[in-house]
Amino acid sequence: MRNLITDVPGLVVGAAEDARLASGVSVVIFDEPAVGGMAIPGGAPALRDGALLAPEMTVERVNGFALSGGSAFGLDAAGGVMAYLAAQGRGFTVGSMRVPIVPGAALFDLANGGDKAWGRRSPYGDLAFEAAASAGLDFALGTAGAGYGATTCDLKGGLGSASAVSSRGFLVGALVAVNAAGRPTRGSAPHFWAAPYERGVEFGGLGAGGAPAADALAFALKSDARVNTTLAVVATDAAFDKARTTRVAIMASGGVALALRPAFAPEDGDVVFAASTARAAEAPTLRDLAEIGALAAECVARAIARGVFEATPLPFPGAKPSWKGRYGQWAVGSRQ
Amino acid sequence: MRNLITDVPGLVVGAAEDARLASGVSVVIFDEPAVGGMAIPGGAPALRDGALLAPEMTVERVNGFALSGGSAFGLDAAGGVMAYLAAQGRGFTVGSMRVPIVPGAALFDLANGGDKAWGRRSPYGDLAFEAAASAGLDFALGTAGAGYGATTCDLKGGLGSASAVSSRGFLVGALVAVNAAGRPTRGSAPHFWAAPYERGVEFGGLGAGGAPAADALAFALKSDARVNTTLAVVATDAAFDKARTTRVAIMASGGVALALRPAFAPEDGDVVFAASTARAAEAPTLRDLAEIGALAAECVARAIARGVFEATPLPFPGAKPSWKGRYGQWAVGSRQ
Repeated sequence: MRNLITDVPGLVVGAAEDARLASGVSVVIFDEPAVGGMAIPGGAPALRDGALLAPEMTVERVNGFALSGGSAFGLDAAGGVMAYLAAQGRGFTVGSMRVPIVPGAALFDLANGGDKAWGRRSPYGDLAFEAAASAGLDFALGTAGAGYGATTCDLKGGLGSASAVSSRGFLVGALVAVNAAGRPTRGSAPHFWAAPYERGVEFGGLGAGGAPAADALAFALKSDARVNTTLAVVATDAAFDKARTTRVAIMASGGVALALRPAFAPEDGDVVFAASTARAAEAPTLRDLAEIGALAAECVARAIARGVFEATPLPFPGAKPSWKGRYGQWAVGSRQ
Repeated sequence: MRNLITDVPGLVVGAAEDARLASGVSVVIFDEPAVGGMAIPGGAPALRDGALLAPEMTVERVNGFALSGGSAFGLDAAGGVMAYLAAQGRGFTVGSMRVPIVPGAALFDLANGGDKAWGRRSPYGDLAFEAAASAGLDFALGTAGAGYGATTCDLKGGLGSASAVSSRGFLVGALVAVNAAGRPTRGSAPHFWAAPYERGVEFGGLGAGGAPAADALAFALKSDARVNTTLAVVATDAAFDKARTTRVAIMASGGVALALRPAFAPEDGDVVFAASTARAAEAPTLRDLAEIGALAAECVARAIARGVFEATPLPFPGAKPSWKGRYGQWAVGSRQ
């Protein structure tokens, strides 16, 4: 087990970044088309080809998902993944054509110090093509992929992932790009809101802390950007139809509330994509669905904390500090 | 401050219960019609006159909300509140008629040992009329109102409430009937999931506990009922339109995830109603909305814990124990 979304059989993940742009793309590509679902808990989504994911819409399966920086410009990323897959003859068949189905969502990282003067054509399509071509089972966390340019209220954001196994053996995983308006920690303390769900020392092993910091519940929002987003993909190998995959997405969105304060805010564009790769032989019951959804929520919460925990700061003046830069000496196993 | 939803100016709360039925009704009635919103995070809702709450629907204001036991039979409760308000000449004007707008939601308490053989006409309309007639600023928590017959996975459920004030003085409150499929505590430990948000010792002052119980993250669901529900009403005195009131409902739904495991499950009928009484003179900003939504989530989480904390067990053989019956000696200030 890698403790990554790629522990779920039937998918690979790719990433591409541009340091001067200070942004990047993460893609999830399914070996075979996967049943898709979605929840949109945030108030300011930037979404492409997501309407088809509603349970009553006709297309049931997706070839992949694209997460990107770049705000709504970053929605070009899905086109790059489509181009890559179409060149391989993959996609929804319409006559002699193949149309790869790749819903995408973007986060706002336009004010992070990178060079955003790309002119007529955004770089996100090319980055996504590159990400798709390099997709595999291993990928970097922290300042990487769609989380490369991400920030939170007062810390560098990043890309996180986590996985879990249900009591009957179904696999669940999450990939998250954390660019929240609020905080992943209990105020200015190093302790993550997601602490009750941490496995091992995957984000430092600090626990929830004893007496909370004085500002644990102080309301704090990013001031330098009016659009902020936590984007997630969750996947399971349990064979669900579109309605049940949507339920997984809805339950998974609870993980945003477990890991960030505030959650689902009007200026957060939180989107959760879900997919069922249906690789498990066992048929899931409704109880399995509830457990898989609960684990998906916890994977999202853990992935949010991991994304922040693993991040490194951007090299620009005034860039937000990383969690490790500010609190790293607290982490279990850190060098003193 | 009562630490109840009635701290929000412009509303009263009433309750009625029937011990033999082992069920009851809670109603929220607004002094003047309030702007309404809703979120439906659960997978098995029992809902009446909720479709009008969507932002694109025409009716903007509601006269009240009805929460009840009785599963879908309990949706008769809204009719009782309507009858009470219509007799007072209150409601949406259509020609010479008044139609009180009272969305309602119900929870499943049909298997709790009470006498449910009511025959042709359910008792919920009459209970709700009585609840409306008795509405005021004070009301009982625990085994009361819509939470009278409620249960959780392994403890008695109940009715809870909590309030908060935003940094700019807006009032926020929640009323919750807790009948969750899952657990409000960290496994078999007495510590509530909502502990990080507790104010004073409103639900025992135990904190989150040190080392978690071995089964803190074990997956546990009620086995004796296939439909379970946490119903919430949140209210604020900030003047929001219907879309922003809906955002408050969505953010408030995060509080279910903060207090219960699992949350948003396929067999939970979680519904969150929201209302703006618009009594505050100050115009709320988008930042105020984010803070009010975050506080609404925390009020929901705190109210869930309070509802379970204050509950007393039903008198039937095999009835689930109350939190105080099982863990009361742990609470701050309890008699040893």
